[in-house]
Amino acid sequence: MSGAIPRGPAIVLVEPQLGENIGMCARAMGNFALDDLRLVAPRDGWPNPAAEATAAGAVHVLERARVFERVEDAIADCRLVYATTARERGQMKRVLSPEEAAGEALPHLVADTPVGILFGRERWGLENDEVALADAIVTFPVDPTCPSLNIAQAVLLVGYDWYKARLPGALPFRESERIPAPREMTVSFLENLEAELDAVGFFVPEKRALMVRNLRDMLLRRELTEQEVRTLRGAVSALVKGRRRGPAA
Amino acid sequence: MSGAIPRGPAIVLVEPQLGENIGMCARAMGNFALDDLRLVAPRDGWPNPAAEATAAGAVHVLERARVFERVEDAIADCRLVYATTARERGQMKRVLSPEEAAGEALPHLVADTPVGILFGRERWGLENDEVALADAIVTFPVDPTCPSLNIAQAVLLVGYDWYKARLPGALPFRESERIPAPREMTVSFLENLEAELDAVGFFVPEKRALMVRNLRDMLLRRELTEQEVRTLRGAVSALVKGRRRGPAA
Repeated sequence: MSGAIPRGPAIVLVEPQLGENIGMCARAMGNFALDDLRLVAPRDGWPNPAAEATAAGAVHVLERARVFERVEDAIADCRLVYATTARERGQMKRVLSPEEAAGEALPHLVADTPVGILFGRERWGLENDEVALADAIVTFPVDPTCPSLNIAQAVLLVGYDWYKARLPGALPFRESERIPAPREMTVSFLENLEAELDAVGFFVPEKRALMVRNLRDMLLRRELTEQEVRTLRGAVSALVKGRRRGPAA
Repeated sequence: MSGAIPRGPAIVLVEPQLGENIGMCARAMGNFALDDLRLVAPRDGWPNPAAEATAAGAVHVLERARVFERVEDAIADCRLVYATTARERGQMKRVLSPEEAAGEALPHLVADTPVGILFGRERWGLENDEVALADAIVTFPVDPTCPSLNIAQAVLLVGYDWYKARLPGALPFRESERIPAPREMTVSFLENLEAELDAVGFFVPEKRALMVRNLRDMLLRRELTEQEVRTLRGAVSALVKGRRRGPAA
């Protein structure tokens, strides 16, 4: 599958402070097939063992990570750059959701054009001068009364929306192939059920046609498989036989 | 805004083990305007101070949380139930992405119908018997080589997609209102620039018309504001004056 997936954006963490957070970002990147992690002046140097401890299965992302002194260097090869921020910056740039940015960037990713997304420091995000380096701002649709996302959550949400844009409709698995039983088998079960219900006087005579119709509607909209029809037929049969034997002592 | 937002689903955590994770789930719920947290037999009892430590601004979610003995009790009032799982269960249910489930559930949420989403234990998720209680399965579009999401990340992604379905297009802020300068101001600046460039022989005569057109195309597609036009005009003027003064010694 990864042969078919378009290029992912570079994830640029600007002056990240805690190694644990870098590791969690790498893990989120791994979830969504991103592997280009760029660190601008990480506070505790690089490599950082604390990052490895939280990266789970995404150590390969950390191993490929590159360190830069300045944001300008980290995005030097990028042709489209987004800056994530939780608050307004008084800049005239367009403001997009992660999903909107992914939609806009997708043709560039498909054309294998480098695209970068900037994420700011844990404490106060990106500086305005760093935001000014981007083509557009990305912000998150969150409830304004409870807007706080940590950096790994922000990377997770961006990775998620961009993965959905890059591989629309992909899921690790879909429903089992469910082949409905042939109609003659289902109808035979229904007729058997209706005959047994007739035998015990379940139907109100003048409403029998309607009740049968409702019963068939209800059971047929399940798209029953052969195994399920056999199970239901067995259950009805067991109830009938149990009644004929009378209640257990 | 929260007056207009449709009801959110109940988030049902089945036998959560670590209080820290319950707190992170509550925080993710707060981000996306969810406040109905239901805990089935939390391992360390309830309330749990470790949960408060990680809930950030979402303590109100923890305070409203309800504890149940069994999954059946936790979803008793729900009329539509989804089970999240990372792996196939051999059940015949439909399998949906969080976004697809949100789209399907939205009319029910708008009608104020209770909807529940089950999340399993940190270690091994939901039991098959618990999955069987749901109407459909929800699984996450993740890279199959690195699929591991922790419970708080799973709640974050579900909350995110459902928030986007409940409040389409909502963002905490959008671009500043950018009023383009009146065309006479922009054109006057362009004519001034072109005259200064004529004066210094910048244009190749036979290509002047094309070069002017390209310059106008480039500068006009930015939707320049009045302030931006003034800034550019000032920059051109400064360049011209500097040149007329001659190079600094």
